[in-house]
Amino acid sequence: MEITLQNILDAAQRIQPYIHKTPVLTCQSINEMSGIDFYFKCENFQKIGAFKIRGGMNATLSLSPEQLKNGIATHSSGNHAQALAFAAKTLGIKAYIVMPQSSPQVKVNAVRGYGAQVIICESNQAAREAALQKVVAETGAEFIHPYDDYRVITGQATCIKEFLEEVPLLDVVITPVGGGGLLSGTSLGAHYLKPSLQVYAGEPEGAADAILSFKSGKVEKAPFINTIADGLLTTLSEQTLGIIKQHVTDILLVSEEEIKAALKLVYERMKIIVEPSCVVPFAAALRNKELFKGKKVGIILSGGNVDLTKFAEWFPAV
Amino acid sequence: MEITLQNILDAAQRIQPYIHKTPVLTCQSINEMSGIDFYFKCENFQKIGAFKIRGGMNATLSLSPEQLKNGIATHSSGNHAQALAFAAKTLGIKAYIVMPQSSPQVKVNAVRGYGAQVIICESNQAAREAALQKVVAETGAEFIHPYDDYRVITGQATCIKEFLEEVPLLDVVITPVGGGGLLSGTSLGAHYLKPSLQVYAGEPEGAADAILSFKSGKVEKAPFINTIADGLLTTLSEQTLGIIKQHVTDILLVSEEEIKAALKLVYERMKIIVEPSCVVPFAAALRNKELFKGKKVGIILSGGNVDLTKFAEWFPAV
Repeated sequence: MEITLQNILDAAQRIQPYIHKTPVLTCQSINEMSGIDFYFKCENFQKIGAFKIRGGMNATLSLSPEQLKNGIATHSSGNHAQALAFAAKTLGIKAYIVMPQSSPQVKVNAVRGYGAQVIICESNQAAREAALQKVVAETGAEFIHPYDDYRVITGQATCIKEFLEEVPLLDVVITPVGGGGLLSGTSLGAHYLKPSLQVYAGEPEGAADAILSFKSGKVEKAPFINTIADGLLTTLSEQTLGIIKQHVTDILLVSEEEIKAALKLVYERMKIIVEPSCVVPFAAALRNKELFKGKKVGIILSGGNVDLTKFAEWFPAV
Repeated sequence: MEITLQNILDAAQRIQPYIHKTPVLTCQSINEMSGIDFYFKCENFQKIGAFKIRGGMNATLSLSPEQLKNGIATHSSGNHAQALAFAAKTLGIKAYIVMPQSSPQVKVNAVRGYGAQVIICESNQAAREAALQKVVAETGAEFIHPYDDYRVITGQATCIKEFLEEVPLLDVVITPVGGGGLLSGTSLGAHYLKPSLQVYAGEPEGAADAILSFKSGKVEKAPFINTIADGLLTTLSEQTLGIIKQHVTDILLVSEEEIKAALKLVYERMKIIVEPSCVVPFAAALRNKELFKGKKVGIILSGGNVDLTKFAEWFPAV
């Protein structure tokens, strides 16, 4: 199904009562040191601490009363799980979330805290899908995929709409890319709302599947996985890749050292907590300064749900 | 010298071009779990990352051209050092900052980064004062004390003025207390601008000098020092104690565990970086829930300058 401008405008109106209009921050010292005019859209301050509530809420609100009756279901160890749990709680319906047993207890607790039923499964894709099919068969719940779903993509596209309303003169926007929900939504939104806006993605060298897929034109796997950006481990889908191929300018890689340095800059200079995954676009801009020099570059800081005990690993005591 | 309402209004106007009007944040989940209606005045987003720029800038701008000519000086290992260095850079004058050799390199670098001249001395009060006297004698620079200075206290009082303009219905405001500059300024501002506002302070059990002074009526030392709230180790001055005795409702103690728990809540729920010192008032409110239940409680989050390598100590890996 092709997503239209009207779909995005409808989604924005549909989810508006349930989400925050997140602030756009700037940082003089970061601009001075980089020569780039950065604007940070702070989805770390969003409901559930991440942009994922946009897609999750839009997909849930798009269901008919008949479909809603039996609840919603997904498999996710991350922010999509919290998004659906929150959406279900808000609408007074049931949510069934399949989570791999490797999920951090803090995330399981957060999902349960919203009243969702958590089904723990083995930590592999086959077990996740089997557990999901079982719960859907038993309950009649509606499955909402984390990104391979046009309602989810349309919901994520509302972020760039808000961003452009606040900073109409943006030249560039950069998002992270995992499964491609945010990137495809952002690039579609830009296509409709400001066709001259260049859309880039940042991706870790240690999870470099999207860049391969973008070049080959078919969904590829990463040659190896080794990154602290644990929200970006998924591969694109046919649907997200199709949109990304059409509307994205380029995908830029960053190293682990660059991710940590960008994280440190955001923590020290901007005083806000963000996930490693969501500084990847910022790190990509800093690595490619000549490409962005003097431009107004928008960064979507996609989330802020971090396990504080990871700090010891990211910023070891000296 | 008695500080008048007009002094505070003049200071607000004087420093306004040089500082940020910091945002006031709220957090639904923290309100729900505590039963208190919290408003957080985010001075961690202030210029130099702390409220100290208010007092430092007001004191500097209050000097005559004749006094400014030879620059300004202080001894500080903390945010007051950065405040004066920034004020001096902004006005194109010299700053001489005496810092103990125990100061973290990152803080020394920050002060030097603003172009100030750093004089390293031994890590004791006598050495700090001797080094300061020497540099003042040699350069003719004006000494600006971190808190025992009515121009500094007046500058700190501008924070509660802004806070009340944004949230006029506040019932209570709580600040940290170290030397008492922010607390005395806040209580004076409240006295003039909203006499019904109750002013409390939070203080670590491991640096409990202000509460003793508040009770005895004379400046006391802490019985022992053991706290991660390293911005609150100084004692009150006669001047700050005089104001605090007159206008503060009470001083509330908190344990190290309570400080760490409050820090974790702010990081996890609000997604912002703050110093341990500045969650002490928030921890005090959480410890005394019955006192504040159902009230609109303002917390001045005084600063966000943290050494990221400390995270490993505050949030050890499990």
